[in-house]
Amino acid sequence: MAEILPSYLAGRWTTGTGAGAPVHDAVDGELVTHVSTEGLDLAEAVQHAREVGGPALREAGFQGRAAMLKAAASAIAERKQELYDLSARAGSTRADATVDVDGGFGTALVYASLGRAGLPEGNLVVEDAPVLLGRHGTFVGQHVLTPRRGVAVQINAFNFPVWGMLEKLAPALIAGVPSIVKPASQTAYVTEHAVRIMLEADVLPVGAISLVSGPVPGLLDLLGGQDLVGFTGSASTAALLRSHPSVTERSVRFTAEADSLNSSVLGPDADEGTPEFDLYVEQLVTEMTVKAGQKCTAIRRAFVPRGRLDAVTSAVVERLRAVVVGAPGADGVTMGALVGLDQRQDVRAQVARLRTEVRLVHGDPERVDVVGADDRRGAFLSPLLLVGSDSAGSPHEVEAFGPVSTLLPYDDADHLVAQVARGEGSLAASVVSHDPEFVRTAVTGIAAHHGRVLVLDRDDAAESTGHGTPMPQLVHGGPGRAGGGEEEGGLRAVHHHLQRTAVQGAPGLAERLGRG
Amino acid sequence: MAEILPSYLAGRWTTGTGAGAPVHDAVDGELVTHVSTEGLDLAEAVQHAREVGGPALREAGFQGRAAMLKAAASAIAERKQELYDLSARAGSTRADATVDVDGGFGTALVYASLGRAGLPEGNLVVEDAPVLLGRHGTFVGQHVLTPRRGVAVQINAFNFPVWGMLEKLAPALIAGVPSIVKPASQTAYVTEHAVRIMLEADVLPVGAISLVSGPVPGLLDLLGGQDLVGFTGSASTAALLRSHPSVTERSVRFTAEADSLNSSVLGPDADEGTPEFDLYVEQLVTEMTVKAGQKCTAIRRAFVPRGRLDAVTSAVVERLRAVVVGAPGADGVTMGALVGLDQRQDVRAQVARLRTEVRLVHGDPERVDVVGADDRRGAFLSPLLLVGSDSAGSPHEVEAFGPVSTLLPYDDADHLVAQVARGEGSLAASVVSHDPEFVRTAVTGIAAHHGRVLVLDRDDAAESTGHGTPMPQLVHGGPGRAGGGEEEGGLRAVHHHLQRTAVQGAPGLAERLGRG
Repeated sequence: MAEILPSYLAGRWTTGTGAGAPVHDAVDGELVTHVSTEGLDLAEAVQHAREVGGPALREAGFQGRAAMLKAAASAIAERKQELYDLSARAGSTRADATVDVDGGFGTALVYASLGRAGLPEGNLVVEDAPVLLGRHGTFVGQHVLTPRRGVAVQINAFNFPVWGMLEKLAPALIAGVPSIVKPASQTAYVTEHAVRIMLEADVLPVGAISLVSGPVPGLLDLLGGQDLVGFTGSASTAALLRSHPSVTERSVRFTAEADSLNSSVLGPDADEGTPEFDLYVEQLVTEMTVKAGQKCTAIRRAFVPRGRLDAVTSAVVERLRAVVVGAPGADGVTMGALVGLDQRQDVRAQVARLRTEVRLVHGDPERVDVVGADDRRGAFLSPLLLVGSDSAGSPHEVEAFGPVSTLLPYDDADHLVAQVARGEGSLAASVVSHDPEFVRTAVTGIAAHHGRVLVLDRDDAAESTGHGTPMPQLVHGGPGRAGGGEEEGGLRAVHHHLQRTAVQGAPGLAERLGRG
Repeated sequence: MAEILPSYLAGRWTTGTGAGAPVHDAVDGELVTHVSTEGLDLAEAVQHAREVGGPALREAGFQGRAAMLKAAASAIAERKQELYDLSARAGSTRADATVDVDGGFGTALVYASLGRAGLPEGNLVVEDAPVLLGRHGTFVGQHVLTPRRGVAVQINAFNFPVWGMLEKLAPALIAGVPSIVKPASQTAYVTEHAVRIMLEADVLPVGAISLVSGPVPGLLDLLGGQDLVGFTGSASTAALLRSHPSVTERSVRFTAEADSLNSSVLGPDADEGTPEFDLYVEQLVTEMTVKAGQKCTAIRRAFVPRGRLDAVTSAVVERLRAVVVGAPGADGVTMGALVGLDQRQDVRAQVARLRTEVRLVHGDPERVDVVGADDRRGAFLSPLLLVGSDSAGSPHEVEAFGPVSTLLPYDDADHLVAQVARGEGSLAASVVSHDPEFVRTAVTGIAAHHGRVLVLDRDDAAESTGHGTPMPQLVHGGPGRAGGGEEEGGLRAVHHHLQRTAVQGAPGLAERLGRG
């Protein structure tokens, strides 16, 4: 791989200068590449995206852009093996990589299809029916949506270098807004390759996509009221970006999707031996181990009826004992590595904070048996299960972004709703129950604190897409700690890149505006 | 009036301590009252609203709350004369007060009616149709909306003490979110009386509405991820509020509607003698003089075809000469006072900034003939018309929040669109033309920079609601300088106070959740 990972700006590949920051292999600690954006002309890149990319995209209209997106996503699908191979260096098993890569192009294809089916030719969406604003019917108002004239800066997290990039790029592209992709340094080489595949397919107009492989000091200074920033990552970085003058003074449209303390709830009806008991345990273990628990939607707080805490603990521990940690692809491995040694250090520190109040019942944060690798060089970590009590505050505040969950007891539905609310806003929750009354009370009680709530039971389990999986058709985001934003949600994500305008005039005005 | 204007917190009237800040009559400069919030327990007020007001409102359901809103708005309608009288002290003519008071209860009544017709019983809105997420139809996802569990802090501008309060209160109330109203000090006594009328009508549950009559230091510190802040006022205050940690770190849902440099465009077809020429001139003069130009939607930039600049200038000046400035209610008065001497000083300063680049063609910022009052004691100001050239930057940057507009030339539709965009985002624009092709090009070209675009012509003029008038059915807000937010827009404003949650499960899940 290149000594310095290239960026793609103003329609050409370019490389930062200086030594750059090293990026290491998650599994063996070897150097993969460096990231540097020193000397890159971000102002030129933004201007090029706005003045070349924007007009070229708008020229194609919604339908043309949906077709472009389909072609770009298909190019990635055809070369997915290359991305799986790179992902292994970031610690991902084949299953993990599939979530990211197939999840990524799959999401883009869903968007292409939603765009094709649900958007007009041209650049103007007539959103609703006209409203009469006078008694004689000569004056009406209605809402239209048109592409914003700016750029969409997309700041992604390290854990989904392909999906994270595509779930932001897809709606922006369909909307007609050029994207400036900024991957997280740790896995920027996976994103870079995915972008390269799309560019090599030569299906997007020049300026439609730019890539900044590294830090972006000063980028936000260049943005104004027609631009957007989409951010996925930590709450602290979200807060930093959101307090930037481009957001506070110039109203850059800002969306954050931040890691949160997601819950899974076992219903009081789900005794040992019921399908729901098993589904609950199985889903918890899955969420702890997929991507080694490095998912913003992963279950951090697992609520169970107080009297069933021991039974659930035993069942989860039994399954966790079967987890094989090791190098992706090595014999029998079911869980890969964290993205890097720094990340492992951070998770260990958060677990230590949790352990001041809650008890570790499975795993050792300092050591784990590893297959096919060396845990002193690779970022391996044991799955860690903790058990807490209602008095503990840390499970509702501390996020260990790895294979870590805490079991917590609850007494009844009211108590449960209050406990879940202590997380101060989450991306996703599961309610695992076959009792309609409990489901009703729990879901309506916790809905306001969540962007997504999954009801898992014997009737839907076979086709359930799972607690941790955002779907392109459904909103992804959540209030409070989860960042207060929304991504995906079908065409809502496209609309997010459009400006809503109420037009007023004689009847038929929206039609007279044509294709925009 | 009381020495210190009362506040209504935690279900009771209360009064700040200390000397407070004086509020003066706009017309004669006499002391009206003082505002002080010293010693008020805002933390108790927020807690009371959340824990008493919220549950009581949710108990009533959407339909019950729509009925409450109708009753509250009707109470104001019945006692509107009291509000007109108070408004006169703030410089408003009867016509100005009607815009505020009748506009206010009218907006609330529209919301009550939209809520009644468009929302269910209970507290759960099923937003869209279920989406199949599996091939066998056993697993679906769809979006529901439920009331956020927080409070809505509503920070209003001085210019519409009744409408501004009600257009924010109405959707929050229907949504089931308790409101904490914070009026601007200059006209807080008008808002206080409107709130008092609603409370005396005894139609709202305790805790549904609170009123803080004065500054609110520390209020935002008390807010979290279930709360909302709605702000109307200057861009600088919007930026200050938006950078507060409750917004940046805890994702308080924040909306700003800021004053902007709104445009009105005369089409190339609209020669002297056409109905559109007259409509353009008439609307410009109306927008300059209603509320003495103290409207966030007022026309600051009036674009005309270059060759018609002199003709339009003459026609506007001729009408401005007929404007009679003076005490509201005094003989023949057609334009009242600014809200206070500080405001007049500010407008004079902004006009001075404009005059470094553009030419004053009507009025004198330092003197005006006044009927029935003394312009040394009252905040009177002449309407001021300026004329600029394309090279001037200040008309696109400087807002004089009074009876002030600048005429600017344009060459063709492309030039026009580029000039309008220099305002960096506005609330409203008018395109006054009867040429379908020009209307199409102009509206689609400027739409992305606006929250609302009015097309005014001979066909709709008789029923046009006007450039400056936000309608409850249509979004009010705009990108960039206008704050990047949206208010009103029919039920969109109610939805803004609800949390959207994607629920996933077996088919029929949303129905099984009942009324929420």
